[in-house]
Amino acid sequence: MTGALSLSTREALRRLAKAVVVITTSHGGIRYAMAATAVNELSMDPPSMLACVNRTASIHAPLRAGGDFCINILDCEQADVAQACGGLKKGEERFSLGEWGEAEGVPFLANAQANIFCINDMHFSYGSHDVFVGRVSAVTLHGAVDPLIYVDGRYTKALMEAV
Amino acid sequence: MTGALSLSTREALRRLAKAVVVITTSHGGIRYAMAATAVNELSMDPPSMLACVNRTASIHAPLRAGGDFCINILDCEQADVAQACGGLKKGEERFSLGEWGEAEGVPFLANAQANIFCINDMHFSYGSHDVFVGRVSAVTLHGAVDPLIYVDGRYTKALMEAV
Repeated sequence: MTGALSLSTREALRRLAKAVVVITTSHGGIRYAMAATAVNELSMDPPSMLACVNRTASIHAPLRAGGDFCINILDCEQADVAQACGGLKKGEERFSLGEWGEAEGVPFLANAQANIFCINDMHFSYGSHDVFVGRVSAVTLHGAVDPLIYVDGRYTKALMEAV
Repeated sequence: MTGALSLSTREALRRLAKAVVVITTSHGGIRYAMAATAVNELSMDPPSMLACVNRTASIHAPLRAGGDFCINILDCEQADVAQACGGLKKGEERFSLGEWGEAEGVPFLANAQANIFCINDMHFSYGSHDVFVGRVSAVTLHGAVDPLIYVDGRYTKALMEAV
């Protein structure tokens, strides 16, 4: 029963279109990056974001250790970075595509649609995941609005014209 | 300083494209509906969703009272429902557009891309918002994948072709 529900939930989630972000952090001199879609604004008082991270993900331990992080909203031209950080590459190799900078020890993707730097403020656990809450500390923007979007199992972009 | 950070965070969030959902619940015989974008998959073990809800929203009290809810992923043809449930209309008037059904006391939007029915399982508070965790109890799907997307302050849809 849970199996059938899990399948139908996954089918529904193919319809929950999302901008693709890469979450980045570092710990002990090692950089981590993970593509994600389960990332949201949380509150504007204070400006804050949340990110759902599977406890099996390599970035989980450094986040659980309290590392500050950056939420990089990918540009529609950065699908290759999404794929690399989505599992195609591992560890430091995830930084072999795209241009990366570092701010106060936190790596960030240059030329992303936006870099939202977050102080790791709290987390809570549910099922297989931890939800990390980040208090926004700085934001940078690049280029016209045209983010990479993940929907129906593929990377695409928005039409941008009103419907 | 917080004001400037709030402004720049809002600018960044215009780039965090999202499918538009309407969260629905009922309490004491009254139906509630609210358009939202801060809704995510949380875990697949168990299948679960989270939704960030401002404590000033009318739907907050019934959710805080433990009401089960439905996450309705809107079709690209349902921008009028998004606008009505996004603030254009209030209370029961939000149900004047679109076709609505009811399942085990929870209202749902017929012909949505998906209806994800959730048992209200837990919540936590942060800043101005409560985050509600729903354990998925049932899912229905309708039509081809073509969700309504909110990006850069407007309703649009995905190109759907791979980039």
